[in-house]
Amino acid sequence: MQKLVLIRHGESIWNLENRFTGWTDVDLSAEGYEQAKRAGQLLRKNGYNFDAGFASVLKRSIKTLHIVLEELDHLWIPVKKSWRLNERFYGSLQGLNKDQAIAQYGAEQVQKWRRDPNEDPPPVTKEDERYPGHDIRYKALTERELPLTENLTQTMDRVLPFWNEIIVPRIRKNDQVIICAHGNSLRALIKYMDNLSDEEVTQLEIPTATPIVYELDEGLNRIRHYYLS
Amino acid sequence: MQKLVLIRHGESIWNLENRFTGWTDVDLSAEGYEQAKRAGQLLRKNGYNFDAGFASVLKRSIKTLHIVLEELDHLWIPVKKSWRLNERFYGSLQGLNKDQAIAQYGAEQVQKWRRDPNEDPPPVTKEDERYPGHDIRYKALTERELPLTENLTQTMDRVLPFWNEIIVPRIRKNDQVIICAHGNSLRALIKYMDNLSDEEVTQLEIPTATPIVYELDEGLNRIRHYYLS
Repeated sequence: MQKLVLIRHGESIWNLENRFTGWTDVDLSAEGYEQAKRAGQLLRKNGYNFDAGFASVLKRSIKTLHIVLEELDHLWIPVKKSWRLNERFYGSLQGLNKDQAIAQYGAEQVQKWRRDPNEDPPPVTKEDERYPGHDIRYKALTERELPLTENLTQTMDRVLPFWNEIIVPRIRKNDQVIICAHGNSLRALIKYMDNLSDEEVTQLEIPTATPIVYELDEGLNRIRHYYLS
Repeated sequence: MQKLVLIRHGESIWNLENRFTGWTDVDLSAEGYEQAKRAGQLLRKNGYNFDAGFASVLKRSIKTLHIVLEELDHLWIPVKKSWRLNERFYGSLQGLNKDQAIAQYGAEQVQKWRRDPNEDPPPVTKEDERYPGHDIRYKALTERELPLTENLTQTMDRVLPFWNEIIVPRIRKNDQVIICAHGNSLRALIKYMDNLSDEEVTQLEIPTATPIVYELDEGLNRIRHYYLS
């Protein structure tokens, strides 16, 4: 039996301001830092150690992972960052306050965008400063890979190659792995791992900075999973 | 012409206490954090950006690099950590106050251990808790690679494979590289790059958290180097 730990980043400034964040690279809030620290202490208290860590290329994820590893005195393990673990790209909703979005588009539509795995938020144009093609950290991506908007299914489609090609081989050689990512990239991963229906994933809410432990059998099938608290 | 930036970690708690540190994994001092932050700000003010970062597996190096990258808003770049960039392994001097060492062994001998590239400090035994074979972060090292003591020549011998095989290929594809390491691993690297004699390297003192810029030609020969300040 092997354990895998998933963790969503600590509260960000835009979580606090209730804004759609997506690929916007906002920092952790002061509470987010504290949450990350407590998550690290909790993992330490429960005897967790890791051989490898994974994060997105967004600082709220990277910093949460660094803080957790510092608490574990494991800053020295290899950490790999990838855009494939980024939050869902929320198109032109990025930056919008969620209440404003409801006022503008109606609660039902906003809820669909947030939760229906096949519903696309309104896209950005390539001229929009939020288009990731303007950001050097994405310069190695093909035009096809650079999103204008994303639904959860599309997020899952770009998370899974990283899971299968980079993370799974690590787990197969018995490495203890921690993945620090985002609400929707983790929902995508969990939908896949737990084989959730579109309906089921709609209900799935992932709290910030709370370690989720997956116990896996030799075939990497889930035995059980639980929040560490 | 390409630039390479070397930087020694910020002041550590044991720098402050004037103790031989070596592979002991001590943290930055409060001033060390501030130094690292200022180094990052200085690099930012001078328009530096990086495609890849390198650190040792010791937290004073890793944290200095993280702080610098955070100031540059470049936490997302790949960072590779290696024991090959570690400080020189100081044998059984590790933990000793430098004045105590002088009282015990005499100023001349201590100066030799500190500066003569071929002078071995007294070794630890394999039973000593300071022997790196007891630390899981070195579990992939062969017994030959695990030091009991090191002189600067030996430090250079294990730094250079990492330089040649991992860092140089990055520089050759025009990546901007920052290496955050230690007084003696940087002296070893600089001895090699600048082709310094044993005499010359004896004189070389590297200040903490001060970026050293190497301008290299296409053959990776040094055109010039200077401290950024």
